[in-house]
Amino acid sequence: MKKSFGAVTLIVPTPVWCVGSYDKKGKPNMMTIAWGGICCSKPPCVTISLRKATYTYGNIMERKAYTLSVPSDKHVREADYFGMASGRDVDKFKETGLTPVVSEKVDAPYVAEFPMALECKVVHHYEIGLHTQFIGEILDVKIEEDVLNGEGDPDMEKIRPLLFGPIPPRYYNIGGFEGKAFDIGRKD
Amino acid sequence: MKKSFGAVTLIVPTPVWCVGSYDKKGKPNMMTIAWGGICCSKPPCVTISLRKATYTYGNIMERKAYTLSVPSDKHVREADYFGMASGRDVDKFKETGLTPVVSEKVDAPYVAEFPMALECKVVHHYEIGLHTQFIGEILDVKIEEDVLNGEGDPDMEKIRPLLFGPIPPRYYNIGGFEGKAFDIGRKD
Repeated sequence: MKKSFGAVTLIVPTPVWCVGSYDKKGKPNMMTIAWGGICCSKPPCVTISLRKATYTYGNIMERKAYTLSVPSDKHVREADYFGMASGRDVDKFKETGLTPVVSEKVDAPYVAEFPMALECKVVHHYEIGLHTQFIGEILDVKIEEDVLNGEGDPDMEKIRPLLFGPIPPRYYNIGGFEGKAFDIGRKD
Repeated sequence: MKKSFGAVTLIVPTPVWCVGSYDKKGKPNMMTIAWGGICCSKPPCVTISLRKATYTYGNIMERKAYTLSVPSDKHVREADYFGMASGRDVDKFKETGLTPVVSEKVDAPYVAEFPMALECKVVHHYEIGLHTQFIGEILDVKIEEDVLNGEGDPDMEKIRPLLFGPIPPRYYNIGGFEGKAFDIGRKD
């Protein structure tokens, strides 16, 4: 039997990604989101949704760029902090001791210590309701060499990304390998 | 040191969700996607991106509705199969032995055996490039009672959703609890 929860933002898993942007004075800022996902393969695009009230919203509208830094489970405290404090009030890099890196391709910073970073140029934004959806074209993906496998590809079990469950709001880590996609379900 | 992978659809984690729809003859169909995410809190909306070539694209354009069924890790083979076969050629419910359920709120079926289902009404669709992005307003979320915790809330460790790593294309399961969100990173 299934229990009905009504019209709520409840699905699993959702990601834990940290959005990097600069404010008007050039101060780097990070904000953690779970409302987002890849939305197109060509051009490669990833979407994030932000409330207008956030500091990051204004930053991205101004510079038309953001990064996504993917924290590993060892950075769960910093990721959670990025989602609570506002760049209006504090310098989140100073508060966490993490290091902002200047992107190569876009006008937004990413986190040196996190294993993975995407550099995105805003190509659209849509008003959905409480949230504005930004569509960012992925211009580059950068991954730490020590989380790559023997073939030079990213290894999820080394990246150890966080997952978010919206209700109740909790973080989880990843478990193990389940199977190759486009393969394990073959019937022929 | 970070290695550059260029402009690719590579970020982790991405979800493994099965999109339910009816074709013109009323045959229920499922398709697995990883390109999607929650995109608004009010109204609650979840986005999925589909290529026009898919059978599901035509179904959703016709009926303006879809469901998302969340497979647990024990259904990894069925989820992978849903992402490879086309509803043009086969009846995926018959092939997998899974059971279609008629939704209460929208004109689309979901999978009885999967622990979680969302019923979504299409409120927008946007052409991004190779993919069309559908914005679905979540009208109801249904979750199996045996994956709820003592408070009646969903328990991620009982739902056991799958994660997808795009490059190389692989499925993973979830690990353990990391901490409460809006809490573990508090500095005060």
